[in-house]
Amino acid sequence: MNSTIVVPEEVSAGEPHAQARMRLLVSCPDRPGIVAAVSRFLSDADANIISLNQHSTDPAGGTFFLRVEFALPPERREGFAERFGLTVADHFGMTWRWWDAAQRKRVAVLVSKHDHCLVDLLYRWQRSELDADVVLVASNHPDSRHTVEAAGVPYHHVPVHRDDKPAAEAKLLELLDGECDMVVLARYMQILSSEFLDRVGVPVINIHHSFLPAFAGAGPYEQAKQRGVKLVGATAHYVTEELDAGPIIEQDVVRVSHADDVPTLIRLGAEVERAVLARAVQWHCQDRVLRHRNSTVVF
Amino acid sequence: MNSTIVVPEEVSAGEPHAQARMRLLVSCPDRPGIVAAVSRFLSDADANIISLNQHSTDPAGGTFFLRVEFALPPERREGFAERFGLTVADHFGMTWRWWDAAQRKRVAVLVSKHDHCLVDLLYRWQRSELDADVVLVASNHPDSRHTVEAAGVPYHHVPVHRDDKPAAEAKLLELLDGECDMVVLARYMQILSSEFLDRVGVPVINIHHSFLPAFAGAGPYEQAKQRGVKLVGATAHYVTEELDAGPIIEQDVVRVSHADDVPTLIRLGAEVERAVLARAVQWHCQDRVLRHRNSTVVF
Amino acid sequence: MNSTIVVPEEVSAGEPHAQARMRLLVSCPDRPGIVAAVSRFLSDADANIISLNQHSTDPAGGTFFLRVEFALPPERREGFAERFGLTVADHFGMTWRWWDAAQRKRVAVLVSKHDHCLVDLLYRWQRSELDADVVLVASNHPDSRHTVEAAGVPYHHVPVHRDDKPAAEAKLLELLDGECDMVVLARYMQILSSEFLDRVGVPVINIHHSFLPAFAGAGPYEQAKQRGVKLVGATAHYVTEELDAGPIIEQDVVRVSHADDVPTLIRLGAEVERAVLARAVQWHCQDRVLRHRNSTVVF
Amino acid sequence: MNSTIVVPEEVSAGEPHAQARMRLLVSCPDRPGIVAAVSRFLSDADANIISLNQHSTDPAGGTFFLRVEFALPPERREGFAERFGLTVADHFGMTWRWWDAAQRKRVAVLVSKHDHCLVDLLYRWQRSELDADVVLVASNHPDSRHTVEAAGVPYHHVPVHRDDKPAAEAKLLELLDGECDMVVLARYMQILSSEFLDRVGVPVINIHHSFLPAFAGAGPYEQAKQRGVKLVGATAHYVTEELDAGPIIEQDVVRVSHADDVPTLIRLGAEVERAVLARAVQWHCQDRVLRHRNSTVVF
Repeated sequence: MNSTIVVPEEVSAGEPHAQARMRLLVSCPDRPGIVAAVSRFLSDADANIISLNQHSTDPAGGTFFLRVEFALPPERREGFAERFGLTVADHFGMTWRWWDAAQRKRVAVLVSKHDHCLVDLLYRWQRSELDADVVLVASNHPDSRHTVEAAGVPYHHVPVHRDDKPAAEAKLLELLDGECDMVVLARYMQILSSEFLDRVGVPVINIHHSFLPAFAGAGPYEQAKQRGVKLVGATAHYVTEELDAGPIIEQDVVRVSHADDVPTLIRLGAEVERAVLARAVQWHCQDRVLRHRNSTVVF
Repeated sequence: MNSTIVVPEEVSAGEPHAQARMRLLVSCPDRPGIVAAVSRFLSDADANIISLNQHSTDPAGGTFFLRVEFALPPERREGFAERFGLTVADHFGMTWRWWDAAQRKRVAVLVSKHDHCLVDLLYRWQRSELDADVVLVASNHPDSRHTVEAAGVPYHHVPVHRDDKPAAEAKLLELLDGECDMVVLARYMQILSSEFLDRVGVPVINIHHSFLPAFAGAGPYEQAKQRGVKLVGATAHYVTEELDAGPIIEQDVVRVSHADDVPTLIRLGAEVERAVLARAVQWHCQDRVLRHRNSTVVF
Repeated sequence: MNSTIVVPEEVSAGEPHAQARMRLLVSCPDRPGIVAAVSRFLSDADANIISLNQHSTDPAGGTFFLRVEFALPPERREGFAERFGLTVADHFGMTWRWWDAAQRKRVAVLVSKHDHCLVDLLYRWQRSELDADVVLVASNHPDSRHTVEAAGVPYHHVPVHRDDKPAAEAKLLELLDGECDMVVLARYMQILSSEFLDRVGVPVINIHHSFLPAFAGAGPYEQAKQRGVKLVGATAHYVTEELDAGPIIEQDVVRVSHADDVPTLIRLGAEVERAVLARAVQWHCQDRVLRHRNSTVVF
Repeated sequence: MNSTIVVPEEVSAGEPHAQARMRLLVSCPDRPGIVAAVSRFLSDADANIISLNQHSTDPAGGTFFLRVEFALPPERREGFAERFGLTVADHFGMTWRWWDAAQRKRVAVLVSKHDHCLVDLLYRWQRSELDADVVLVASNHPDSRHTVEAAGVPYHHVPVHRDDKPAAEAKLLELLDGECDMVVLARYMQILSSEFLDRVGVPVINIHHSFLPAFAGAGPYEQAKQRGVKLVGATAHYVTEELDAGPIIEQDVVRVSHADDVPTLIRLGAEVERAVLARAVQWHCQDRVLRHRNSTVVF
């Protein structure tokens, strides 16, 4: 059985009389009747579907993806997940998880010196534009402490010494342990080891300052100038072991010309970076992103 | 009862053993259980949902819109529509229609002198990029006859005399009667009367050469130059009695500068016009567009 | 004689041995020889042209616009403007001004409750991305005081009482007098009187939250939702007596859909507003914008 | 001396009394006085500058690029080029060429099976939107003969046999010899040898169906789907010996999603390809593109 149950702890603790807004995410081999089975289950549980998105890579033999957002009366939440597992998920061989929309995701941000993405995320959070909370920031530089603490967020300076990177990663893991639901690399210029990625236990999203797969690796704007491209871009992706090669969540570009030197590319690119990262983080926090092999379905 | 049945004639004539691909479009007052009821009905009819989109203007007291594309075994098509009406649609007070995806919509194009949108539609049709067939072209000018006939489409020259517009409209209605499922105004520079719109009996889509509601009426590029805008655009919309004020299906823009004179705006705008109109026609022909008051839901 | 000399006070006070980077802006009736005359004058003064842009509305009888950026040896600055006036400008009937690029423009910002444009301008200024200095902020609300003062900028709360708007304008004029080279209305939701505009004596740039001329006036996002447009935008323009009708400097749009409610339009629009306003302010501060009737030439 | 004179034959053959519109293109080591020297030369020749663009990669030690469009009285054309060479170009070590704007460039198009770029170029040419003439089309397939001949353009079927590519290239060189000013590869799916590029003697522009340098080589849309990118694009570039690595003239992208399969990417990409190629060809034909190492300056 390949179905996976991820039940947030708070599920049974909600306010007793309010309708909870839940999100159900499913992937499974495609076959007839999935939407009907899910929506019948929800209807039988007096759940009201608020939005439903589905995608199939191929109706014949492909993979089916589903996201349903629904309102569930509090008295129907008891045993809801178990019943879904038994009566629907197992039958279709689903990998699934659900999430209480009221439970805002806790975001940890790692940053180095360039703070434009960090500042942007903090500002969106303060304006209540982010369906998540920034709970801590860690950096290999001390520079952004004032900005972060002024926003009421703890700032941890975790220097990275060239000859002892594992020590820095261990320190980060200690800080992050149990504190966050996702990690955002908001221009964190250190490569994280696969051990770190294994042990951190939550999704890690990175913003790369190029339109991947063009200009992976270091100095993408210098590479872009060298190659004479007419657009520069940014890519938000899940971090995997292979550098700059994880599943892409969002990308965008901006037009440039021969007249733009590298500092100008960097400035123009920074606009795209912060916009692209903000969209990717928001979509992830709204449970809109499903991974499929090395790509994503974004509902 | 406000439900409306539109059953295409060919529904029972399909190839006997093939799965038909059908589209169901629904709008009704929003309330819990609609998706469940529809998907249960489809499941009970052995239909396999291929895609499903829904939208609610407001879960409390708003209007609900649904588009489902599904495969239906041929032996289940007999009486399908009647059963849906009785068991689902009436219960929810639905306005609904369905359409066999194999039945390509028949498009009549009206054009004046500027032929870029016409040429583009013909080319997309010839490349099989349009889920529709261009079945006739009519124009108040003789200019495009060669282009149209070379594509194997009948061309009708219907001159419009300033002092007898009703005669031209009567001639057009005669040509269109029963021949088409929609009319596209591909830069047809005559204003159609409300009598014509009433009598034509099929949706009429127009391309207006501005980003509506800016620059409605005549000479939009001249108006745009006069106002000094930095973007010019185009708008595809359903035609209603009120000029350039019908529900918008699609819009797009292109960047311009002080250096672009009116002929250049016209040339740049023509690119946008043909792209916007092609998208609007394609979406309409795929039954992706539902009207809601004076706007549209595009799935 | 219609030539106008605007010589910044600091012109003769620059560092003695450095090459000054100057900008010359010219408009005049078009006729042959203007570029040659200007560039010959600059060459004779040992000035090195760094960039040169020109535009003519019509080579026959139109208006000619020129922007030249050049490096001028300090020992050649004495009398430079007077000589240019006598030997070139008067001959061609030029309206002209020049500006020392090293002299950063002083920007005063007026804001109401929505602070996204203000915060963005402050952030760009702090990152040295703005070729200008934010020297003061005034608001009819007290809300942004902390943000502004944290950036080291004076914040003035100038309440506007419905029955005594002139008092507020008088207070603003007093604050602004001699303190700034331009005023930016970064979502300042009060209409300024023509008396104010006359007396303030510097250019005033406003950001309007729609793609003008669509949705001028109040509540543009509500108007946009009502009309069902598929793109929303923002417009930066010079403020004139007529509301939302001044010369447009920059515009941009973002795609929206039926699924976006008014708060979402506001959030998406805010992204465009801050980007458009930042570009307009930057271009103005780099002396790239020339007014021509009710439109602009942006070099 | 590194200055190069390219004088079009027709220069002295123009209509005797008309003002000729000429374009001068220059590149040279940057140093003070270049614009002044050129504009003084033009002024002394009674030439009227219509537009002037310049760019320097670095005012100190960089390369300077200039494009001037000017009107020249016919009686001043005699010896114009020689004088410019002697009095200006040699002095500054310029590489330069000029071109009579009235002399439309002759374009040869090579195409394989996908005809969307070809059809688009023909249509723009027929609408007089291209400042060039399509003089011949050659293809390794017979498919587009009807389309091309209907436009009044000769069509040459030059099959390419896997075991004798040189024969096909020889045949093409024979067809092109002296007949065209540039060659456009409008989705020509054969790799041209460096011998061909040497011998063809005119610039060759290719449209690659990806946002280079991402997805160079074969099957870019398949590569894009595999990688899960959120934008697909197209790149027009000068062809050099190294496949898909020549100087980029223009690029653009279109947004795609997980729901788009490879045929849809191909269809969406085709829109971008034809737009990007048309812009690149037009700019080249207007002498707006200067090569600099492996990139371009586009005025």
